Formats: sequence, structure tokens, C-alpha cells
Amino acid sequence: MSDVLERLAQVLEARKEADPDKSYVASLHARGLNKILEKVGEECTETLLAAKDAEQSGDTREVVYETADLWFHSMVMLSSLGLGPKEVIDELARRFDLSGLEEKASRDK
Amino acid sequence: MSDVLERLAQVLEARKEADPDKSYVASLHARGLNKILEKVGEECTETLLAAKDAEQSGDTREVVYETADLWFHSMVMLSSLGLGPKEVIDELARRFDLSGLEEKASRDK
Amino acid sequence: MSDVLERLAQVLEARKEADPDKSYVASLHARGLNKILEKVGEECTETLLAAKDAEQSGDTREVVYETADLWFHSMVMLSSLGLGPKEVIDELARRFDLSGLEEKASRDK
Amino acid sequence: MSDVLERLAQVLEARKEADPDKSYVASLHARGLNKILEKVGEECTETLLAAKDAEQSGDTREVVYETADLWFHSMVMLSSLGLGPKEVIDELARRFDLSGLEEKASRDK
Repeated sequence: MSDVLERLAQVLEARKEADPDKSYVASLHARGLNKILEKVGEECTETLLAAKDAEQSGDTREVVYETADLWFHSMVMLSSLGLGPKEVIDELARRFDLSGLEEKASRDK
Repeated sequence: MSDVLERLAQVLEARKEADPDKSYVASLHARGLNKILEKVGEECTETLLAAKDAEQSGDTREVVYETADLWFHSMVMLSSLGLGPKEVIDELARRFDLSGLEEKASRDK
Repeated sequence: MSDVLERLAQVLEARKEADPDKSYVASLHARGLNKILEKVGEECTETLLAAKDAEQSGDTREVVYETADLWFHSMVMLSSLGLGPKEVIDELARRFDLSGLEEKASRDK
Repeated sequence: MSDVLERLAQVLEARKEADPDKSYVASLHARGLNKILEKVGEECTETLLAAKDAEQSGDTREVVYETADLWFHSMVMLSSLGLGPKEVIDELARRFDLSGLEEKASRDK
């Protein structure tokens, strides 16, 4: 799954300059940060409801779909603020010491 | 940034079985899905507030930190439902046709 | 401001049975609890964003408008579950011992 | 249920100036608008989860409790911005024409 977020970030950057009538991402940027944040909040609510429904039904497809929406719109938010998923992933790696130091160290031998 | 989410997912799976008194992740699972979803909602709100503050101040450190919290807790939610980030990343790849170089390479022939 | 919530609750009950094509409230009920909860979440996010904007601009009109939307949709949620604002107001009165000084005074006689 | 929100608003105004170590409301104001908005978002999430649980179990007590928390914290937010429930109730009355026509009619006699 590795480079998908990186490629998606590139797509999002490119669409930032696209025609708002032709690109959903461009239309979000044209409508401003509040509109983007409303979408993040909306997708978070839909994720929570899908998780509660999955708890009952055992069907998890909707949770996957809504979490993808949530991550997608939070990446549009990052892009709107001049950031990308790399900063978030680096922060997660830093916290959990997942930056692959051992691996690298062993390769350095 | 590639394999960090994958490694983090492994850490989250391992901690699911850990002692709730010693592991934050285990303590979330012990308290149940509602508690995990409350944390997802909480981190989403904090992300929105941090984005609004970044809009004013230009300082984006808090947004990165809160988005990391949001993604982290949504991964705990996925784990609680027997899912992982792979399913979400696959869904994003499918939507944006980011699923692989081989595919594209074969089309380029 | 006294009886407005009570009258609004009556309007909401009446519209529950209305034609979904003619009444917004009836259309929400027809679409089900998840749709109603999505609206509650959406209006909550818009309230938070309006409050952050008011903090900067000093213009509080949007906060009033969005909080009205939030309270309105949470009343639709209550109605959908067979509840009304009275139960919520009673709970607040109970917590803060606001249930009526005059009443108590008359009982004390 | 009429005057409870009005009395609660008075209590909230009084506690604004209270000792943050002794009053929860004062402690929220001391921690600032973001903290208050975090609580509004948190209580909104808890309301949604309680509504989903009530949908399954038929037990609505938690929904009433969480909605009271949501309305309470949104009143602390209003108070923090120099507003009160009156402005919100007036907006609802204006939208639904609930402003008391019968009352006015009787006064017009």
C-alpha cells in the first residue's frame, strides 16, 4: 500500500490548479478552508455511524469507504495549508519509532 | 513514508492483546468501540480547530500533530473491526487509479 | 423565549407525518436516523467553525444561526426517538436545581 | 420547561467570574474558546453514539443525558462569545413563526 498516499498527494497538488468546474478538489479549494473542514467533519460523522452499523451487522464495507473519504478530505485540508501526508506519516513514525532505523542500520553494515 | 502505516498496523495488532494497564491501545480496546469512536470524533474536532488556528497564525505544527492523532485513532477503530489501513488505501487507490505502476506500464506498451 | 421550544416540538411532531416531498422534517424522517444524525454532526462542525470565525471577526451572527441549526436538528433527532426537548430541559433543570424557585416557595408555605 | 434555559443562562453568566478551581464553567472559560469548542464537539459525538445505541436497545436515557451535555456546552460557548440562548431561541422562533401570534393578538385587543 506504500506509495499510494504519496501519489494521491501529487494528484491533489495538481488538481489544486485545475478548473473548479471540472475538478471536485479544485472546487473545494475555490470554496475555501471552511468548506474543506466541513467536509472533514461530515466524513468523520459518517465514519462513526458506519462503524456503529458495522458493529451490529458485521458488514464493514461502508466503514472502509467512509474512512477513505475521511483520509481523502483530511489530505485536501493538508494540501490547502501547504502540507502533505508525509508530515503526518513522519509524525506517526516519530511517535512509534517506526522510521526504520534498525533496518537501515543493518543495511549500513 | 511508504511502509510506516503498515508497520503501525502491525504494532496496533500486537498491542490489541497487551495489558490494558500498560498499553494505551489495549486500554482503548478494553473500553470498547464507543470509547474508540469518541476518540476519533475528539481528534477530528481538534484537527478542525488546529486548521482554523493555522489559517490565522501560519503555524501548522498543531495541524500535523492533530491529523496524526486522527489517523492513528481511525486505525485503532479499523483494527477494532478486524480491518487495517490496507483496505482504506486500496479503496483510495481504486478511486484514483493509483493502484500500480505495472498496470500503467502495461497500458503504456 | 419561554415556550418557543415547546411549540417547535409540536410543529416537529406534526411534520413527522407530513409529505416528505413538501416538508424538510418529514424528508429527514423518511431518510432515517443516520441521515438525521449526519445533519446533527454537520451543524455541530459548522457551529465550531462559525465560533472560530466570530473569535477573529467579532461578528457573531453566523454562530447564532448555526447553533439554531444544531439545536433544531437535535430536536428532530429527539423526535425520531420518541423524545422531545422537555426531557432535555428537565435533565438540565435537575442538574442545576433550576426547576422552579416559585414552585418550591409555594410548597414551603 | 419554559424558563429553565433563561435561568441556566444566568447561572452560566455568574459562574463566568467564579474561581476556576471551584467552578467547572469558570475552568472552561479559563482554558479558552478552543477548550469549550472541543467539549461541544465531544458531546456531539457522544450524542450520536447514544442515539445509535438507543436505536438498537430502545433505551433512550443516555441520549437525553448526552443531548443535555451538548446543549449545556453550546450555551457555555454562546456565553463565551457574549451571547445567550435567547438569540438562538429568537432565531428558531423567527424561522418557524413561533413568536407568539396568539399572545400578540390578545395584547392587540
